[in-house]
Amino acid sequence: MNKKVTPKTLPGFLELLPQDQILFNQMVDTIREGYEQFGFLPLDTPTIELSEVLLAKAGGETEKQIYRFMKGDTDLSLRFDLTVPLARYVAEHYNDLVFPFKRYQISKVFRGERPQKGRFREFYQCDIDIIGNESLDLIYDAEIPMVIYHVFQKLKLGKFTIRLNNRKILNGFFRSLGLLETSSDILRIIDKLDKIGEEAVREELLKMELSAEKVDQIMNFLKIQGSNAEKMQSLEQLEIQDEVYVQGIEELKEVLQALQDFQIEESYYQIDLTIARGLDYYTGTVFETILDDYPRLGSVCSGGRYENLATYYTDQALPGIGISIGLTRLFYQLKEAGIIQSGKKTISEILVVPMDKTNNTYVLEVANYFRNHGIKTDVYYQEKGMKQKIKYADRLGIPYVVVIGETEIQEKKVSLKDMSLGTQELLSKEDVLRRLTEK
Amino acid sequence: MNKKVTPKTLPGFLELLPQDQILFNQMVDTIREGYEQFGFLPLDTPTIELSEVLLAKAGGETEKQIYRFMKGDTDLSLRFDLTVPLARYVAEHYNDLVFPFKRYQISKVFRGERPQKGRFREFYQCDIDIIGNESLDLIYDAEIPMVIYHVFQKLKLGKFTIRLNNRKILNGFFRSLGLLETSSDILRIIDKLDKIGEEAVREELLKMELSAEKVDQIMNFLKIQGSNAEKMQSLEQLEIQDEVYVQGIEELKEVLQALQDFQIEESYYQIDLTIARGLDYYTGTVFETILDDYPRLGSVCSGGRYENLATYYTDQALPGIGISIGLTRLFYQLKEAGIIQSGKKTISEILVVPMDKTNNTYVLEVANYFRNHGIKTDVYYQEKGMKQKIKYADRLGIPYVVVIGETEIQEKKVSLKDMSLGTQELLSKEDVLRRLTEK
Repeated sequence: MNKKVTPKTLPGFLELLPQDQILFNQMVDTIREGYEQFGFLPLDTPTIELSEVLLAKAGGETEKQIYRFMKGDTDLSLRFDLTVPLARYVAEHYNDLVFPFKRYQISKVFRGERPQKGRFREFYQCDIDIIGNESLDLIYDAEIPMVIYHVFQKLKLGKFTIRLNNRKILNGFFRSLGLLETSSDILRIIDKLDKIGEEAVREELLKMELSAEKVDQIMNFLKIQGSNAEKMQSLEQLEIQDEVYVQGIEELKEVLQALQDFQIEESYYQIDLTIARGLDYYTGTVFETILDDYPRLGSVCSGGRYENLATYYTDQALPGIGISIGLTRLFYQLKEAGIIQSGKKTISEILVVPMDKTNNTYVLEVANYFRNHGIKTDVYYQEKGMKQKIKYADRLGIPYVVVIGETEIQEKKVSLKDMSLGTQELLSKEDVLRRLTEK
Repeated sequence: MNKKVTPKTLPGFLELLPQDQILFNQMVDTIREGYEQFGFLPLDTPTIELSEVLLAKAGGETEKQIYRFMKGDTDLSLRFDLTVPLARYVAEHYNDLVFPFKRYQISKVFRGERPQKGRFREFYQCDIDIIGNESLDLIYDAEIPMVIYHVFQKLKLGKFTIRLNNRKILNGFFRSLGLLETSSDILRIIDKLDKIGEEAVREELLKMELSAEKVDQIMNFLKIQGSNAEKMQSLEQLEIQDEVYVQGIEELKEVLQALQDFQIEESYYQIDLTIARGLDYYTGTVFETILDDYPRLGSVCSGGRYENLATYYTDQALPGIGISIGLTRLFYQLKEAGIIQSGKKTISEILVVPMDKTNNTYVLEVANYFRNHGIKTDVYYQEKGMKQKIKYADRLGIPYVVVIGETEIQEKKVSLKDMSLGTQELLSKEDVLRRLTEK
């Protein structure tokens, strides 16, 4: 037993110390609770699937990133998102599901990207989707941002804006310019607007051999400004006769109306005509979410409406809408930016410290009393000096230490040490409980 | 888009329908809550690790089962348990951890076993471990079964028995017979006692060229009967002078005393001298847990004390003790045996059903009123007939439907439909809340 293997994790794989893990789990719990509050059902698909199934649709960049391998004769892949497994799930269990099928899944996905700061190869996605059988009412396009509105408020990351758009408006607009075929290339350039600026976008569009007039029309379209109502007005005033465009306007209007009916503060959502997202996938409403104080984090929660979830597995028409929080990346960025701080996050509120191990019964009686009242309680059993016992609580950030020695046992009391104040008092365990629950 | 891929999961990979997933998640929540109540900190190590790191110790059967593959030039493996990653974690983050380090991890692990009924290739383990720096007090050997005692009571799977033993007793006993070298072979045979019976075990032992006298001594040792106190007495009366044996007896006695001090009902734990577990790994106390009404499920929760967690990564002495619930297998077996039933498990307690979509504001006001009072609430927005709307609640097992139409809006009330009674009443939302929280 001499040669040691260096204990290390792979680059691009986030692993947290306990105090950060506690913080991360609190965010997961908040998201999960938020999703469940709106009636989404939990799902937990396998991490490994048949490559044939998982890659039915993939191609290009995505496929290169997949963790794919043989086990015996079987060609396997690790899931790279939660949408493809959802499609497979709904197609496979179609007869057992109740529609509209509202599910959430909070799971790790795997992508062998070139590792770079803030990019991960294994990361959590927190997805919700609503799948209709044959049809799905447009009002669900407003329910999704409503859920996100509530979840992000609970996450307490400051003011945020849900940016929304409708792909039909973009598609119809480009079709009216006779640019439908090249629209996905144009959209790809437009997607860079935030990053490279207006001039560079204009230049790239001109390089596509678009006439200066058309480029102007595109730029003017993208620069439509104002409140949501003003933007809608401007879009209508363009009087584009394209039927897809008109349908997109109608849909967006209805979604905005629903958001208003849902009494979501208007400063929290905003039409953004530059949002295209998932170029071949989304077909209607699309979303991105920006933290107002930290726009450079980019979209922290994105999604949209798709016409058909599972065309690769079934003929059944399954329209849906979904959104995803990329939690690992978000968590990492929030930490980096100092927006969240783990500090001394801990699980236990109380550490019970026996002076010696002569009276485990009373020690346990006290510890279990707190546990039974919902207070997480640790006990330090190591035979060390009192200083080291207290240090354990201090390093873990446990706010209260309950010391039990001869005196405490005789008087059927405990000594409560408040770690932040440095005070110590002899109290009954009931008084300690009262003290803690009052806080 | 014509040729379809058959949507299916791999054999040995459990995937649940939502009503079962809800039940499964409830068990995970109960276990997690139980672990946290005793001060265990959460950990979430990566699913993928360097093969060099993960397989530092593995060999034989385990290594054959590993999902191992190359990505570019990197030799990767999926974790096959949570103990090796814990060892790597503690060695890697040694300076940042507070000892004794109490952690829990509830994660999937992967083993490419030959699939058979009730055996899984991807399954959840729910582990707790307590790692000491240089030393770890023996009383933690009693804390682990105490945690399990509380967790299993909360899981409500009926009466259970934690069987315990101490490897030192076994090792010392075999050494006293001059059988230390072959003790692991003997233990392997003894492990089969429950399955193949006493006669077959005796025969196999005789085949090992043990004298009939020694076989008798072994069989008599294993057949020691009685209460825990009686068993301890019998063990002492054997008057085996081996120092390891004597130490094992002392340890077991101390653990039993602590369990008594902790006021754990004695019918819940029992000395079982046939338990050996993880032949090269455990060095002291060992545990198994049996559901009394379903002994044929075998041990549903096992673990023990090990002298050194991370010898492959560090020279630091890291003694520890841990235990693991194999939740996927347990869940599957409980379902198969009819011990747990998913029935109509659901997330939402209320389904709000608008008669039409003319008044989303009031519908949302009502839904959010319940949500803000901690009641998970779904809204059915699809434009379908009332019958179909009610069917959604029925199929999902949502117990209450709140119908909102013109009358309800005008009177600022709602119609509460109790799905089990079939009754319907016009009530204020406050009355509905009272009705639900009273239950």
